[in-house]
Amino acid sequence: MQNPTLILIQCKDAVGLVAGISNVVAKHELNIITMREYVDEESNKFFVRVVCSGMLGSEETLMQDLMLQLPENSTVSLSPAQRKKIVVLVTKEHHCLADILVRNYFNTLQAEVLAVVGNYETLKEFTEKFDIPYHYLSHENISKEEFEDKLAEALNIYQADYIILAKFMRILSPGFVKQFKGKLINIHHSFLPAFIGANPYKQAHDRGVKIIGATAHFVTDDLDEGPIIVQNTKTIDHSYDLHRMKTAGKEIEKAVLSRAIQLLTEDRVMLNGNKTIVFKS
Amino acid sequence: MQNPTLILIQCKDAVGLVAGISNVVAKHELNIITMREYVDEESNKFFVRVVCSGMLGSEETLMQDLMLQLPENSTVSLSPAQRKKIVVLVTKEHHCLADILVRNYFNTLQAEVLAVVGNYETLKEFTEKFDIPYHYLSHENISKEEFEDKLAEALNIYQADYIILAKFMRILSPGFVKQFKGKLINIHHSFLPAFIGANPYKQAHDRGVKIIGATAHFVTDDLDEGPIIVQNTKTIDHSYDLHRMKTAGKEIEKAVLSRAIQLLTEDRVMLNGNKTIVFKS
Amino acid sequence: MQNPTLILIQCKDAVGLVAGISNVVAKHELNIITMREYVDEESNKFFVRVVCSGMLGSEETLMQDLMLQLPENSTVSLSPAQRKKIVVLVTKEHHCLADILVRNYFNTLQAEVLAVVGNYETLKEFTEKFDIPYHYLSHENISKEEFEDKLAEALNIYQADYIILAKFMRILSPGFVKQFKGKLINIHHSFLPAFIGANPYKQAHDRGVKIIGATAHFVTDDLDEGPIIVQNTKTIDHSYDLHRMKTAGKEIEKAVLSRAIQLLTEDRVMLNGNKTIVFKS
Amino acid sequence: MQNPTLILIQCKDAVGLVAGISNVVAKHELNIITMREYVDEESNKFFVRVVCSGMLGSEETLMQDLMLQLPENSTVSLSPAQRKKIVVLVTKEHHCLADILVRNYFNTLQAEVLAVVGNYETLKEFTEKFDIPYHYLSHENISKEEFEDKLAEALNIYQADYIILAKFMRILSPGFVKQFKGKLINIHHSFLPAFIGANPYKQAHDRGVKIIGATAHFVTDDLDEGPIIVQNTKTIDHSYDLHRMKTAGKEIEKAVLSRAIQLLTEDRVMLNGNKTIVFKS
Repeated sequence: MQNPTLILIQCKDAVGLVAGISNVVAKHELNIITMREYVDEESNKFFVRVVCSGMLGSEETLMQDLMLQLPENSTVSLSPAQRKKIVVLVTKEHHCLADILVRNYFNTLQAEVLAVVGNYETLKEFTEKFDIPYHYLSHENISKEEFEDKLAEALNIYQADYIILAKFMRILSPGFVKQFKGKLINIHHSFLPAFIGANPYKQAHDRGVKIIGATAHFVTDDLDEGPIIVQNTKTIDHSYDLHRMKTAGKEIEKAVLSRAIQLLTEDRVMLNGNKTIVFKS
Repeated sequence: MQNPTLILIQCKDAVGLVAGISNVVAKHELNIITMREYVDEESNKFFVRVVCSGMLGSEETLMQDLMLQLPENSTVSLSPAQRKKIVVLVTKEHHCLADILVRNYFNTLQAEVLAVVGNYETLKEFTEKFDIPYHYLSHENISKEEFEDKLAEALNIYQADYIILAKFMRILSPGFVKQFKGKLINIHHSFLPAFIGANPYKQAHDRGVKIIGATAHFVTDDLDEGPIIVQNTKTIDHSYDLHRMKTAGKEIEKAVLSRAIQLLTEDRVMLNGNKTIVFKS
Repeated sequence: MQNPTLILIQCKDAVGLVAGISNVVAKHELNIITMREYVDEESNKFFVRVVCSGMLGSEETLMQDLMLQLPENSTVSLSPAQRKKIVVLVTKEHHCLADILVRNYFNTLQAEVLAVVGNYETLKEFTEKFDIPYHYLSHENISKEEFEDKLAEALNIYQADYIILAKFMRILSPGFVKQFKGKLINIHHSFLPAFIGANPYKQAHDRGVKIIGATAHFVTDDLDEGPIIVQNTKTIDHSYDLHRMKTAGKEIEKAVLSRAIQLLTEDRVMLNGNKTIVFKS
Repeated sequence: MQNPTLILIQCKDAVGLVAGISNVVAKHELNIITMREYVDEESNKFFVRVVCSGMLGSEETLMQDLMLQLPENSTVSLSPAQRKKIVVLVTKEHHCLADILVRNYFNTLQAEVLAVVGNYETLKEFTEKFDIPYHYLSHENISKEEFEDKLAEALNIYQADYIILAKFMRILSPGFVKQFKGKLINIHHSFLPAFIGANPYKQAHDRGVKIIGATAHFVTDDLDEGPIIVQNTKTIDHSYDLHRMKTAGKEIEKAVLSRAIQLLTEDRVMLNGNKTIVFKS
């Protein structure tokens, strides 16, 4: 059986969109496996994700036929579902990276890890156990600009679909973020928007919260302000000191990032301004 | 604005169903608000729930046009979304009933409670505070058959869409169940299929489980074996004695039953053999 | 069987505190049912909650004997466990109030509701169904000071142990808060410290979060900055508009406040600066 | 700072136990860091876990002094907290093993993995990446007795504190279980007691449940009937086919087993007949 075909459409809302789209799909002898749509009433936008099976003939003709049914300025993405390529950025903490590398090794990631880039050597040996290239790129003794130039250079080798900041503890400049727009995914160790910035567990501990959490989000210019993909929390109590909070937090970070990667690599996430539409099923 | 129109279809799976259905909908100048479909590959069945806005002309013509697009033996239900009517059966425990009556009183139930029937008088005073009729129907000193005849008689007055067994502690005979097929909803105080039957918390306590739960399900002939609508669980520990287990369990029971009623009254639940399809969003 | 005796102690940490305290308890022929202690290493403070059974002789002697074992400036609270008294403040939303009044009516609250005070008449009829006095106290056409004077006057009638702000939508002045220090409990409709202040669901919707939550906390001078007692969250998705977010949020608010009341009325909460120690079991 | 000393006591309940024990501890100049006790009223048994800091003098004298304070037939375990040793048994599934080996590699397991034994070669290469010996021990072409003899032989080399069945798909005979009593820990892929035995996800799928779960438990003679240590569940819906159910289930299995290992290796689990006492904090 060939791969399913994935159709992602984003356009102004209008009457008859579902009929129009499903007619085109039927005309091309594609069978709808799942179709999930969402109308954002505030922005009057229509979003749809269609998974089809069947022999995909001319992509070009299908695209043209779809465009004829859609309002001006619609965005259509059309592709056979395929494994995305990712590069992982790390600093010293291993938990998220290890989770990704193990899934990659056992082919359960639905993505392919091309390389790991780290600003310390800490995770080099571990990464190389899995025959994944590790680029050690220290940020020390060079300017931020220089560091980011080298980082961009390393990333440009791989042309990854997504660059996963798996506890990468450097703040990236707007210029860098712009260069990889829509591809940078970060895991922040708090339930945003609480505890933006550095040391969120310290902030959380000082505030005496009874839940901790983690947030996977797209990186934009504003620190920790990008579109949120996945969040989760865990109940804690007064007996959690900073160390125990961090240890428990790592389990959430790992799970939240892993879930975000799964959703992204299955093309289930669409951007809607500073928010995301996530078609989970 | 008029009420949305709700279309529920269940049929054999086939190519072009979404196109066919959405074309009919568009032809009748109805605008699709949400459309959720599911294909059960095992039984090769297609299920769809469409919510439309717009002026509904002739229901009959719409029905005929839909039928023309569908395989033989399809089931189509077509109706303006409207408040369902429910009757609640109780014994002595108040937590589920109170939750329902409070929501009913404040118009947040999306259903209308017509009456409460109880085999004890315990909850009469509470029910009547809310100007809901309470039928006291003792099961004592009469045969099961006689009791069920009286119960059926009381229920037949109301012609409810759903009969909610809100901790109704009598087992109903197959004959009775048959009479109200598809309308009887029970809350069982365990995560089925664990701890079927009487005293599930006692069973759970004896087994030393670390989670407790509750299950809302359709009632069928087999005790606690009907199609499951909603389940939830809560983590407990060794310090929960039977009393504390029951107390914590009541919070889950109440929430699970409340959620099931919400899903049913919004026509989000479809039967698929002994399972349910639940279109949550 | 008489009520258990509850001993709550807060003092500087020292070697031998558990031995010292348990010896005094044994000498007074009280049997320890549960003993939960916590040492806050940052502040070097020791907290303990002891539940004892047995005939309580002279409270005074027990207190003196305990004090002899403890460092200077220790705080000891000694009391037979008994039902706390509460007054509930409301505005227009019913969900938290209804939950409290139903539990009060069926004697499952472990507290006694003395009265409800509301700045609208919306919830008067409902409250009076349960034979609880409702004080209607409008904030309109009078100064904040005048309003708070009347409120304090009403509260002073009841001498409640806790004053529950069950979605009371008025910000209280520092003077008022000081007058009822340690007694005011608020439910905030977000997972603090995210979305402090007004319209947290609006803020959450605009930010595109994937979880919503609620926080029960002591009221202090700083808005929404008091010691947190209970928090919980729920996963949502892009399809939640503001209305649905609020509806789902109310279920969390109700559950979180209910849990906080339970913990407070069982004397399980101790203050530690701007944090709480909560001995759940 | 030296390691804390851990005291675990199980005995008949009696008045003054906490005082007696804490006096002995104080006399030996040990400072109580945490003390958690539980009385099982059904069996009239007292359980306590004390963590102490301070110079541990003669263990023998401490043991004797404790015994003098306790009823007959008490069980006292006294030891400096230290890393437990574990051996892992596997078949073909990697998720639990990988989780354990990664934690072991990064020293976050609080235990030391001595070896992995597998009845297939599937996980050999992965295990050896981490320099952990892998014993391949096929069950094919030999009797169950012979297989278990070889398994026992391999296990006896290591004298592990716990033998973790990380998705080991062979049922062990009573004789074997007896030999390693109290040391065998299994992860079962359902929320027991639901879906005992083979293919729990198939059973769950056929029943149409809305939650799936996993259970970590001690292995006893009765299949899946041993004392439960940790359980957890996850909400699913009708769209989960068997494959997706299994995939989601693996995340729970991994987390539940990991948590059980953590609790065991921190000596937080005590046996109480066919139940466990788990002192989480």
